[in-house]
Amino acid sequence: MVRIGVDEKIAPELLSVLPAEAEIVRIPREGDQTIDIDFWIIPFARKDAKATFQRLRGVKVVQSLMAGVDWLIPWLPKEITLCDGRGIHDISTSEWVLAAVLSCVKRIPTYTRLQERGDWRGQASVKDDFISEQGANAGFYRVLGDDLADKTVLIVGYGSIGAAIEARMTPFGVNFLRVARTPKQSPQVFPVGQLNELLPKADIVVLIVPLTDDTRGLIGEKEIALMKPGSLLVNAARGPVVETDALLAALESGHIHAALDVTDPEPLPQDHPLWTAPNCLITPHVAGSTPQFIYRGFRFAATQVRRMMAGEPLDNIVSEHGY
Amino acid sequence: MVRIGVDEKIAPELLSVLPAEAEIVRIPREGDQTIDIDFWIIPFARKDAKATFQRLRGVKVVQSLMAGVDWLIPWLPKEITLCDGRGIHDISTSEWVLAAVLSCVKRIPTYTRLQERGDWRGQASVKDDFISEQGANAGFYRVLGDDLADKTVLIVGYGSIGAAIEARMTPFGVNFLRVARTPKQSPQVFPVGQLNELLPKADIVVLIVPLTDDTRGLIGEKEIALMKPGSLLVNAARGPVVETDALLAALESGHIHAALDVTDPEPLPQDHPLWTAPNCLITPHVAGSTPQFIYRGFRFAATQVRRMMAGEPLDNIVSEHGY
Repeated sequence: MVRIGVDEKIAPELLSVLPAEAEIVRIPREGDQTIDIDFWIIPFARKDAKATFQRLRGVKVVQSLMAGVDWLIPWLPKEITLCDGRGIHDISTSEWVLAAVLSCVKRIPTYTRLQERGDWRGQASVKDDFISEQGANAGFYRVLGDDLADKTVLIVGYGSIGAAIEARMTPFGVNFLRVARTPKQSPQVFPVGQLNELLPKADIVVLIVPLTDDTRGLIGEKEIALMKPGSLLVNAARGPVVETDALLAALESGHIHAALDVTDPEPLPQDHPLWTAPNCLITPHVAGSTPQFIYRGFRFAATQVRRMMAGEPLDNIVSEHGY
Repeated sequence: MVRIGVDEKIAPELLSVLPAEAEIVRIPREGDQTIDIDFWIIPFARKDAKATFQRLRGVKVVQSLMAGVDWLIPWLPKEITLCDGRGIHDISTSEWVLAAVLSCVKRIPTYTRLQERGDWRGQASVKDDFISEQGANAGFYRVLGDDLADKTVLIVGYGSIGAAIEARMTPFGVNFLRVARTPKQSPQVFPVGQLNELLPKADIVVLIVPLTDDTRGLIGEKEIALMKPGSLLVNAARGPVVETDALLAALESGHIHAALDVTDPEPLPQDHPLWTAPNCLITPHVAGSTPQFIYRGFRFAATQVRRMMAGEPLDNIVSEHGY
């Protein structure tokens, strides 16, 4: 019988998807008793995971429900199969990116602030006088927002979530540019070394790279300067991928707009200037976290357990590179 | 030579798409001089359009750039071909609907208000204790938002814009229910008489009907009571399609959420209770108005002029029904 180890506080409803033939073993957070399991499910990065692992015996597979497993690699023995949560966050995170992009394009935060004042008319920013013409709609129609259609979107880190973002943006009629560590054809993915050639072409730049030594500070003063005036930088990756001081300066000068689910530092202190920078939407690292996420995670873990029991190869096995 | 009549104040750049072989005739807003034209382009509903028409001679086609032409029908002679702007607003309005739906689902207005306070943590509304668990992300991950995936979306008024909304929502993995005046198969469109059977099934109800005697007050106290608790009502149609008092009561009680681009009355007075009703996003009738809209309109008008010059049938000819 396969023994599946889970944290002692996991909600029972999450475990109902696991195969009935498997034995579920709840791992106490405290104590020094050794515990025999075959398959360990780790939903989040718990600080006590390494200590917990010392009490486990017989572990063959560790299944993380997070996409990033860099925190596990240093101490997990190489002979244990490590599987990451690639794909589990695709829905929630790609939906957040669409929400953030469309909110910025349509100026939802601006309208929310106008709503607080009971201000129907909005701040007209009309170059073409005709658009705010008199007539039946005098004074009502104001052009604050824009269309997503025909924009060029640069996806930096074209993996599982990047493809999910592209799938959801495709019907809007946008043009895609894609960058990843490993270049590809069909769809064309440029190597990250060509990022600086692509930045000036994009109206919207979406960051969805893992945080590694290569991606830390990937977007700094030089890269932001290459972006189109008025373009939008979306960070759904990790805060340190963008240099905060350079971002802040570019927002203050009006050069770019930004939508950030992640910041550096995190949490953002209450008096941090990023909170009040112009044209900057901030959400507190919630893109991947929806009520459904954890259920998707356990459904994926259950599929992995079934593969193991059937002697089939597992998905999402982490290579020696760490992702 | 075909003579195309346009308002005297139309920006020259909008006219550059018209066929070079056509003569462009600028129609003065004042004066009583008669003017000969074949094809009249009306971008917006101007109050003086009827008076202007009295000065025109030889008009064969009137091209409105608005989807709704109910204001033209009563006084335009039947022998003149009237073409509406069906399709021109598809992009801007369907994009607004996606922006509004995703903003509400992901709680962008709430996060905007939290951002104003420099509040990173947000208001946790966590039923499942595990989701806000301790660990590496203690206190950071909070579940306020939701997923669009797997939701049921009811499109009320399944025409050109309704189909554009469906196209953009399809990759999110939602289920669609469709209602229109005329039922159809493939895709299945239910007759409006079945609306009350469908309302309890929907997580999101999108209104995109024209305003007619049949649709005025279509969504009142009874219909709102049929909606699922916590569901979202999106009005991208016209304010009077929804009974404001019934909507307000349902918002105050927490029964439903709403995203409104249109209200009744319009403009919404500064002290109107709708501005501050809970879970209600309001934009000031801007969904169709983007900088690109007017260019799309004139490109469409230019195509119509070319069809006329080539003796081909025109698109968007308005039937005697008015839409």
